[in-house]
Amino acid sequence: MTAALDILAFGNAIVDVIAQADDDFLARENLNKGSMNLIDEARAEHLYAAMGQATVISGGSAANTAVGAAMFGARTGFVGKVKADDLGALFVHDIRAAGVAFESEAARVGPATARSFIFVTPDGERTMNTYLGACQNLAESDVDEAQVRRAGVVYLEGYLWDPPAAKKAFVKAAQIAHAAGARVALTLSDAFCVDRYRDEFLDLMRRGLVDLVFANESELHSLFQTADFATALNALSAETARDPAFVGVCTRSAKGSVVVSHQSIEEVGAAAIEKLVDTTGAGDLFAAGFLAGLARGADHRACARFGALAAAEIIQHVGARPQTNLRDLATQDGLM
Amino acid sequence: MTAALDILAFGNAIVDVIAQADDDFLARENLNKGSMNLIDEARAEHLYAAMGQATVISGGSAANTAVGAAMFGARTGFVGKVKADDLGALFVHDIRAAGVAFESEAARVGPATARSFIFVTPDGERTMNTYLGACQNLAESDVDEAQVRRAGVVYLEGYLWDPPAAKKAFVKAAQIAHAAGARVALTLSDAFCVDRYRDEFLDLMRRGLVDLVFANESELHSLFQTADFATALNALSAETARDPAFVGVCTRSAKGSVVVSHQSIEEVGAAAIEKLVDTTGAGDLFAAGFLAGLARGADHRACARFGALAAAEIIQHVGARPQTNLRDLATQDGLM
Repeated sequence: MTAALDILAFGNAIVDVIAQADDDFLARENLNKGSMNLIDEARAEHLYAAMGQATVISGGSAANTAVGAAMFGARTGFVGKVKADDLGALFVHDIRAAGVAFESEAARVGPATARSFIFVTPDGERTMNTYLGACQNLAESDVDEAQVRRAGVVYLEGYLWDPPAAKKAFVKAAQIAHAAGARVALTLSDAFCVDRYRDEFLDLMRRGLVDLVFANESELHSLFQTADFATALNALSAETARDPAFVGVCTRSAKGSVVVSHQSIEEVGAAAIEKLVDTTGAGDLFAAGFLAGLARGADHRACARFGALAAAEIIQHVGARPQTNLRDLATQDGLM
Repeated sequence: MTAALDILAFGNAIVDVIAQADDDFLARENLNKGSMNLIDEARAEHLYAAMGQATVISGGSAANTAVGAAMFGARTGFVGKVKADDLGALFVHDIRAAGVAFESEAARVGPATARSFIFVTPDGERTMNTYLGACQNLAESDVDEAQVRRAGVVYLEGYLWDPPAAKKAFVKAAQIAHAAGARVALTLSDAFCVDRYRDEFLDLMRRGLVDLVFANESELHSLFQTADFATALNALSAETARDPAFVGVCTRSAKGSVVVSHQSIEEVGAAAIEKLVDTTGAGDLFAAGFLAGLARGADHRACARFGALAAAEIIQHVGARPQTNLRDLATQDGLM
């Protein structure tokens, strides 16, 4: 029997290839700052050749969240597809090193392990260019029913909607989880991703298949097709009126976060930082903290504080995997 | 005709796999803090499995030096052997991205691209464990005579003495360089490396095949088999008496550096840092600055200041490749 997990995350298994770049570079390469762009192999080769000295660190949105939650002490698993190549080995090593259960079989054939070429500008903002590679082979057969049934929360990233087969795995996992009484959480991933799949994401929420949504401001604006934050928040609030169990969490960078539930709207401040270095993973690590808090039975305010702490850690260094013991940070903050 | 170069560096082409570890981990794994250990494939697998979340960044001592010198504006080349695999591609990308000429053919067969598993302890000290892999295939045939003949300085790392075939390439390059009137510089690499090849290194110096030596305190102690710095410095000074063209440079971490020549003994302070993060590459980048200074016709004091600036940059972040524009640092410091 598979071990019980607090959180089982599904996502694209990606290795990040990170370099510094200036605004002129983004303009030359026609890159929209802060966005995630899907690229093919030819574009990947072009961007890599144009890229400066790189730092390679495991990434992937939901994988980063799984690692962060595990570092707070939550029992966590991850499902995602790598190829059996060097970067795949790197990904598997790192996720297991963080104590995350990972059993997805690596593909022996087909495209290489996914990589995201991430350009970090001097303002700390990151612009991502993802070659999905082996992620396109995540399929329903990678969903272990027994494992899903024993998870407290199943966490899914919106990016999984991009590889067509993964979408089916995503829905299958959500259905199994719901049938077993678990919560299903979804991160909207990226405003352009929301733009691609808006109706499907809203449908997942309104069918009650997803009961916890993480979004940043621009994703929320994209979801509800408004440029006004108050309007977007009202729309999120309306979802909780429709389904009292639904919870929406909106992250707002330095402005902290807002947790919208049927009972209340909680605003929680961001944690203090010394220096913004690289925003990669800020949303992922916020979700990590929030979910780890939920797993501990914390209330929404405390969950958002866990999230804020983890997000503050991740944006102060290059890469989306924590370099500081998150448990220690939470202890110092009086959360644990 | 190959382009003229200020510096042509020969070294092991290595990718660094860096993780944080505590002193207990070093003790458990029987690792001597601050050392470089050569490991076989089985030990590499063991250490990687035991290692936490890793950051992967191109490394290799002489390669780091080549990159640093190029970032100061020196025309620089590197010779070293990778395999045609993912990590090899990473190494080649990064060295070329820094503007270093690199034409060594990647091996199609044989062992994988070399990797060094580096454990960084909370005191910022690094302990390296290197699987040489494809580096063992660097051979005399990789030395391009025309390229060596047109280099101002040929720079060699003592670590090259470890793979037996590389040693021959090393000596061949030094002989060609000398015959062409170029200087030959050697870094002693590591106290244990000096211990393995002490007589050969001294012989290279005394045969006049090497006329510039970089060493840190412990390497100098090992070379002259003394635990006393003054005694070691006197022994280095005696080498300059024997050969007036010989120059010895000793780096002393926070205590700065000493440049010993026939004319003088110059002591130069270390550059200020805010926070020591990871000492990996400190010596490599000192040599980068020093050689870049020499290429600009700077005197020994100024060369040592270039070295100190680059070393200070590298120890304030993870990895041995600069993240800050070294030219800007030198300009701010009034060196350029």
